[in-house]
Amino acid sequence: MMAAHEMTYRVPYADTDQMGVVYYANYLVYFERSRTELLRDAGLPYRELEQRGYFLPVTEAVCKYRAPAVYDQLLTFRSYVLEARGVRLTIASEVWHQDKLLVDGYVVLACVDASKKPARIPPFLADACKRYRK
Amino acid sequence: MMAAHEMTYRVPYADTDQMGVVYYANYLVYFERSRTELLRDAGLPYRELEQRGYFLPVTEAVCKYRAPAVYDQLLTFRSYVLEARGVRLTIASEVWHQDKLLVDGYVVLACVDASKKPARIPPFLADACKRYRK
Amino acid sequence: MMAAHEMTYRVPYADTDQMGVVYYANYLVYFERSRTELLRDAGLPYRELEQRGYFLPVTEAVCKYRAPAVYDQLLTFRSYVLEARGVRLTIASEVWHQDKLLVDGYVVLACVDASKKPARIPPFLADACKRYRK
Amino acid sequence: MMAAHEMTYRVPYADTDQMGVVYYANYLVYFERSRTELLRDAGLPYRELEQRGYFLPVTEAVCKYRAPAVYDQLLTFRSYVLEARGVRLTIASEVWHQDKLLVDGYVVLACVDASKKPARIPPFLADACKRYRK
Repeated sequence: MMAAHEMTYRVPYADTDQMGVVYYANYLVYFERSRTELLRDAGLPYRELEQRGYFLPVTEAVCKYRAPAVYDQLLTFRSYVLEARGVRLTIASEVWHQDKLLVDGYVVLACVDASKKPARIPPFLADACKRYRK
Repeated sequence: MMAAHEMTYRVPYADTDQMGVVYYANYLVYFERSRTELLRDAGLPYRELEQRGYFLPVTEAVCKYRAPAVYDQLLTFRSYVLEARGVRLTIASEVWHQDKLLVDGYVVLACVDASKKPARIPPFLADACKRYRK
Repeated sequence: MMAAHEMTYRVPYADTDQMGVVYYANYLVYFERSRTELLRDAGLPYRELEQRGYFLPVTEAVCKYRAPAVYDQLLTFRSYVLEARGVRLTIASEVWHQDKLLVDGYVVLACVDASKKPARIPPFLADACKRYRK
Repeated sequence: MMAAHEMTYRVPYADTDQMGVVYYANYLVYFERSRTELLRDAGLPYRELEQRGYFLPVTEAVCKYRAPAVYDQLLTFRSYVLEARGVRLTIASEVWHQDKLLVDGYVVLACVDASKKPARIPPFLADACKRYRK
């Protein structure tokens, strides 16, 4: 049983909107940052995955907004692998400020090869996912 | 029975990523553009809603990516109201290129007042929603 | 003597920041939208230029912020060609709200070929630029 | 004589475009991140400056693109104060990858009070600037 991957991120002005909070689409960018670092920490930088001929386009994204993040907060992003089976990889992500969960959700990624055709998750990716598998 | 609201949008370089397609978070910006124009066409610009003391923060967003949009495509955004009840407004959005559905999803908006407390959808907002109610 | 190219654009929530105005980096996206439509109107869509093996990476950008644009404003973008010589293309852009100039500036583009090496502006691009040359 | 402020930043997919490099407008976001951390390190978080009734809207931005940054690079942002006089603060920023300068430029900020009127740079801001004054 592994813990989720964690990283921190400081909210820039760029991410806010006139309601004085982080604009809702930016959390999907946060999720991307978080799962990228999860893969790197698991020993498989996403860039390397691409170099080996695999890509992970997003096929579904779900995001629940519980409380707003604001400018200059030091957020914590947490991610873990929900499922890695067949051609499909699901990664859950959460955005925290201190001990308060602000936003959570998940993205479903499709494993495809260089010709953009579905490809079974290769063993080296499956292995990397195990480290942060919930 | 009303049709969905439609508008067009040209994809700039800014929206693409190195996979050569529109980056996945940008569709939530597209959804925002689309529902904003729906409200304007329904006679209630969102800006006016804010001036009358109501705000509609997003509490949930769901997005399904079926096929990628690419640079310079002239996309069509379609939106319609799925539900408007109590303090909750759900708007579905779709992104089309010609006769092909690329992305669809919905966002759930919470109606809040100026003090950010939940507020029942006011009659003038409920009325505006009827025009594009599915 | 040709007029500048003009187009309109509606400011979405996504473009604003917590100061209640359009975030400063977004004007460079506006400039891109504007010069892209200039080229299209001049008969040479940028996408087609890329298909013919030429690219126009930005080498310099200058932006003067005179007054802020705000949410939901219908802005007018104006662009014209300042210089097209050798391997270098300079396009000026302006952002207006009604009869008020909000932001202006220019970008210098380098003409490069598919191998990313500097290439003289091809005649078909030079010709297209003439239409909006100041 | 003080050194420039330095911080690192990892390029996410979100920042790239279909040319396979960081989209040009994003460097202005990088500059913002960099000068924000400069102010924090100098003992005056920008958020605190706002709470004390001062704002620093950008009035001019200049950016020179020497070489492209790419996905997943660990960049170094460097910033220093070029000038802090009257109502005007100029901060230079640079984006490096290892020992290669990719992009540099500067922004001119206007010091304004809560009513958005020009205000002389207050002593506590002037003092903070000294630490990273070139």
